[in-house]
Amino acid sequence: MRIDIWSDVVCPWCYIGKRRLEAALGTFEHADDVEVVWHSFQLDPGAPTQPTESTSVMLARKYGRSAEGAREMQDQVTSVAADDGLAFRLSETLHVNTLDAHRLIHLALHRGGRELQGAVKEALLSAYFLEARNVADHDVLREVATSAGLDGAEVDRVLASDEHADDVVADIERARSLGANGVPFFVIDNAFGVSGAQPADVFSQVLKQAWQQSHPALQLVGDGDACGPDGCPV
Amino acid sequence: MRIDIWSDVVCPWCYIGKRRLEAALGTFEHADDVEVVWHSFQLDPGAPTQPTESTSVMLARKYGRSAEGAREMQDQVTSVAADDGLAFRLSETLHVNTLDAHRLIHLALHRGGRELQGAVKEALLSAYFLEARNVADHDVLREVATSAGLDGAEVDRVLASDEHADDVVADIERARSLGANGVPFFVIDNAFGVSGAQPADVFSQVLKQAWQQSHPALQLVGDGDACGPDGCPV
Repeated sequence: MRIDIWSDVVCPWCYIGKRRLEAALGTFEHADDVEVVWHSFQLDPGAPTQPTESTSVMLARKYGRSAEGAREMQDQVTSVAADDGLAFRLSETLHVNTLDAHRLIHLALHRGGRELQGAVKEALLSAYFLEARNVADHDVLREVATSAGLDGAEVDRVLASDEHADDVVADIERARSLGANGVPFFVIDNAFGVSGAQPADVFSQVLKQAWQQSHPALQLVGDGDACGPDGCPV
Repeated sequence: MRIDIWSDVVCPWCYIGKRRLEAALGTFEHADDVEVVWHSFQLDPGAPTQPTESTSVMLARKYGRSAEGAREMQDQVTSVAADDGLAFRLSETLHVNTLDAHRLIHLALHRGGRELQGAVKEALLSAYFLEARNVADHDVLREVATSAGLDGAEVDRVLASDEHADDVVADIERARSLGANGVPFFVIDNAFGVSGAQPADVFSQVLKQAWQQSHPALQLVGDGDACGPDGCPV
């Protein structure tokens, strides 16, 4: 069974949704047969590659709120994240572009398959939300990506090029074609679309239903001419 | 989509069923996405490796019929095969063991994947039914298998060993666990079991139904918390 997930590196609900899906997979009896593939989504493709402000300042500006109002918005998300075991440092996070981070997530899939991709995705989310690092900075990206298992020289080469930028664009277009305007967006077994960070038990139910749907008992189609232990009757 | 087929090299309905499935695939719009995997089945595991009689003589003996009666049985099958474009020479075929032929079909899958396996399977069926060759004879097996693309030295090595015999046994056990007592037996997309050489239009219907079942329109599961162009509301 395959799970495709559209997600942005700087999307808090994406990280929270990831933990809830993982909790559901932790109790799913066929978890060993589940493959997760991460797809790119950029909430703000126009965000600067060199950060100019914190997300708190950006939010206050964007929604016409006070600094305190923006912090309150972030505190609410931080509180939910804590319930899922994630110690967010949202107030310290920077408003940055994620194109380069997504290009490395594609590189990881290309080079090391789903396992390496999953490690790089988790490392980038962790660096941004738990350590408040600048995930647009090439030195940071290099350090995070190599610690997750990517080759440093290859990371440098990809960051210096526009390699995998077309993959990012294609992912975003595919999300839109599936009707996803926000992330996280999960597609379970090409059959169920789950929008947003649903509770773990919702994921559990969908996993179970998708599995049953794709592994039905064999339906037998009436007997045709065949050969058996007693020969080959016409 | 995947089609698993249990089949014996000396089973006339298996070859006829293969042609009917191929006819159905010829008009199936998603044929390029279909993978066929051949599995072993032995109708008579006790058949001699050095043939001692023709299948006509064996049939007459087994069913207590006259030589003419056995020929009539074979003529009926030959007539059906002709309708599917196969010029059987059943009256000349020999009663032989197919273990070694099946071992080579496994070797082909192992070495060259489904394409090479399909070529070797077809070549063996053709050699037996259209040319009435002894498909237990190692020289014949070598010639047929290498003409289909297997490496001669490797064929010799495998024939001189018992390599892939366990794969043949495992295939037969799996067929029994699926409830197949005769062949051909087709499993379409792990969902539909088709027993026997059904008409091509039955295969067409099952292919269509299996495809629809495994490619349903995305079912959407209600909206959870997500980030979108307008931010990350709690």
